[in-house]
Amino acid sequence: MAEQTTTTSSAAVTELPQKRPREDGAANENMSAVIPGWFSEISPMWPGEAHSLKVEKVLFEGKSDYQNVMVFQSATYGKVLVLDGVIQLTERDECAYQEMITHLPLCSIPNPKKVLVIGGGDGGVLREVARHSSVEHIDICEIDKMVVDVSKEFFPDVAVGYEDPRVKLHIGDGVAFLKAAQEGTYDAVIVDSSDPIGPAQELFEKPFFESVAKALRPGGVVCTQAESIWLHMHIIEDIVTNCRQVFKGSVNYAWTTVPTYPSGVIGFMLCSTEGPEVDFKNPVNPIDEKDDHEKSIGPLKFYNKEIHAAAFCLPSFAKKLIEAKAAK
Amino acid sequence: MAEQTTTTSSAAVTELPQKRPREDGAANENMSAVIPGWFSEISPMWPGEAHSLKVEKVLFEGKSDYQNVMVFQSATYGKVLVLDGVIQLTERDECAYQEMITHLPLCSIPNPKKVLVIGGGDGGVLREVARHSSVEHIDICEIDKMVVDVSKEFFPDVAVGYEDPRVKLHIGDGVAFLKAAQEGTYDAVIVDSSDPIGPAQELFEKPFFESVAKALRPGGVVCTQAESIWLHMHIIEDIVTNCRQVFKGSVNYAWTTVPTYPSGVIGFMLCSTEGPEVDFKNPVNPIDEKDDHEKSIGPLKFYNKEIHAAAFCLPSFAKKLIEAKAAK
Repeated sequence: MAEQTTTTSSAAVTELPQKRPREDGAANENMSAVIPGWFSEISPMWPGEAHSLKVEKVLFEGKSDYQNVMVFQSATYGKVLVLDGVIQLTERDECAYQEMITHLPLCSIPNPKKVLVIGGGDGGVLREVARHSSVEHIDICEIDKMVVDVSKEFFPDVAVGYEDPRVKLHIGDGVAFLKAAQEGTYDAVIVDSSDPIGPAQELFEKPFFESVAKALRPGGVVCTQAESIWLHMHIIEDIVTNCRQVFKGSVNYAWTTVPTYPSGVIGFMLCSTEGPEVDFKNPVNPIDEKDDHEKSIGPLKFYNKEIHAAAFCLPSFAKKLIEAKAAK
Repeated sequence: MAEQTTTTSSAAVTELPQKRPREDGAANENMSAVIPGWFSEISPMWPGEAHSLKVEKVLFEGKSDYQNVMVFQSATYGKVLVLDGVIQLTERDECAYQEMITHLPLCSIPNPKKVLVIGGGDGGVLREVARHSSVEHIDICEIDKMVVDVSKEFFPDVAVGYEDPRVKLHIGDGVAFLKAAQEGTYDAVIVDSSDPIGPAQELFEKPFFESVAKALRPGGVVCTQAESIWLHMHIIEDIVTNCRQVFKGSVNYAWTTVPTYPSGVIGFMLCSTEGPEVDFKNPVNPIDEKDDHEKSIGPLKFYNKEIHAAAFCLPSFAKKLIEAKAAK
């Protein structure tokens, strides 16, 4: 039988000083008071449901120019990074998201050399890109320096990605960065964004995809965070429609399991520009067989070539809608 | 930013009369009070986390000889069936579980004729078994009549499975039913159980698997609910070890996404007895191409042959542990 919990009232805190560590796990601006001492994720993006994690200790709270930033030690998911009340990563399951958003595109093209990461300030995608020995240069454009600093302080196994000498960090607006990028520069662009409510909104719109396409070489690939088939089919259909108009190579949707994301899944749009054909479902650049080349970042935990191919298999309800929009 | 919710105190109700509908959604024995008007699922099976659904109206609460039974209308997941505080199904996502636990085994063998369902009192698995026109007889053994009655009253699109004339319902203990079954009777056994804490405990133990193997014909198949790779690897390893000892054909683990199950995934053990070889990963009996034969139960929403094969592709962390135990 379920445990009984008695709750007490709590009030919102409207203005937070920077870096105010708390030890009581009490409710505050980032802690949608649900169970005292628990963090609950409530959002109009997933109405009528909430996932909650037990908080051992709040390690950091700050308000950047763009969003609220919080880090807490959870009881069972390790440390947790929260932006504007939404879980971005936990130490326990970050491997699934970081490995899939990175290796789905990079294992689909031979010898990727120049890679751009938009968002992804925690550094986890950089860590994964760095596994590819063919890569010569990695640009990352993150709008919020606080995310980078907080990750370096609290998530060393994620921020380890910044230690790779091929990485160049640009703090700024990803939309502007891409507009300014030289045409045909990148083999791959990875858009590791938060949800389309807040600072990441433009990253889901057609002009942004046009800038991505321009910055990619012919037959270059993009992978963008593309929400949940269970919760956001209308958003996904719009993204697929936009991508189909912009990317003249292939347009595909893949998904994976991430327990601490709403509905337990997250999806990815994988597209290629006109040029050498990219068959995302049959990766040509395996990483799982050579993953011992970089001992300092530990082995792959989640990704392998079978789960790469499986990620493109969709439940019928999603397949019908997505394939109709993705068809040329 | 996350919405703020102010909570109030609530007390446990220790004894419930049968069929006491409530309209306030307030906390009670089944409602681990977290947010007033929300149902939260808290269990030692997934410590430190809880998934909550907003309750529009509690439609039924009862206490059977075996467990607490509750049905509520949720804000965004349709009607929800809860046993001992744990969500068993929601109208919004039940398709994933019911279709996968049924068609993974039945599409893996040619012409299944006799099928046994253990548990599954809601009738959803029956609904899916009934799509297979080769099936001549379906036994179901459910221990708790209240689950059957509640499903027929509140979940007509699930309990529709009982309307098929091939179905014979047995109210009783599945362990005893299997022990008494004639050797080699069934082509397939589907074990649609709750978690191994409570009335379903024996359904995860070796003597039960031995009874299943005995009741199956040579080359017959079993599919059992087998928990989450993210939460229960120790339980899964034990199940795989037991199954490897008992089932002399193939032993496989598959998984799928179900948003309202803890960690957002649920797994299945798929095993076959000695006899004609069963290659679960390459189904020989497709249902998705012939699913218009039974218009009365609606089309498949989730299952197709690609997602069947994909279900057996495991993340590396799970693959390593499961394949080590499953190897002959």
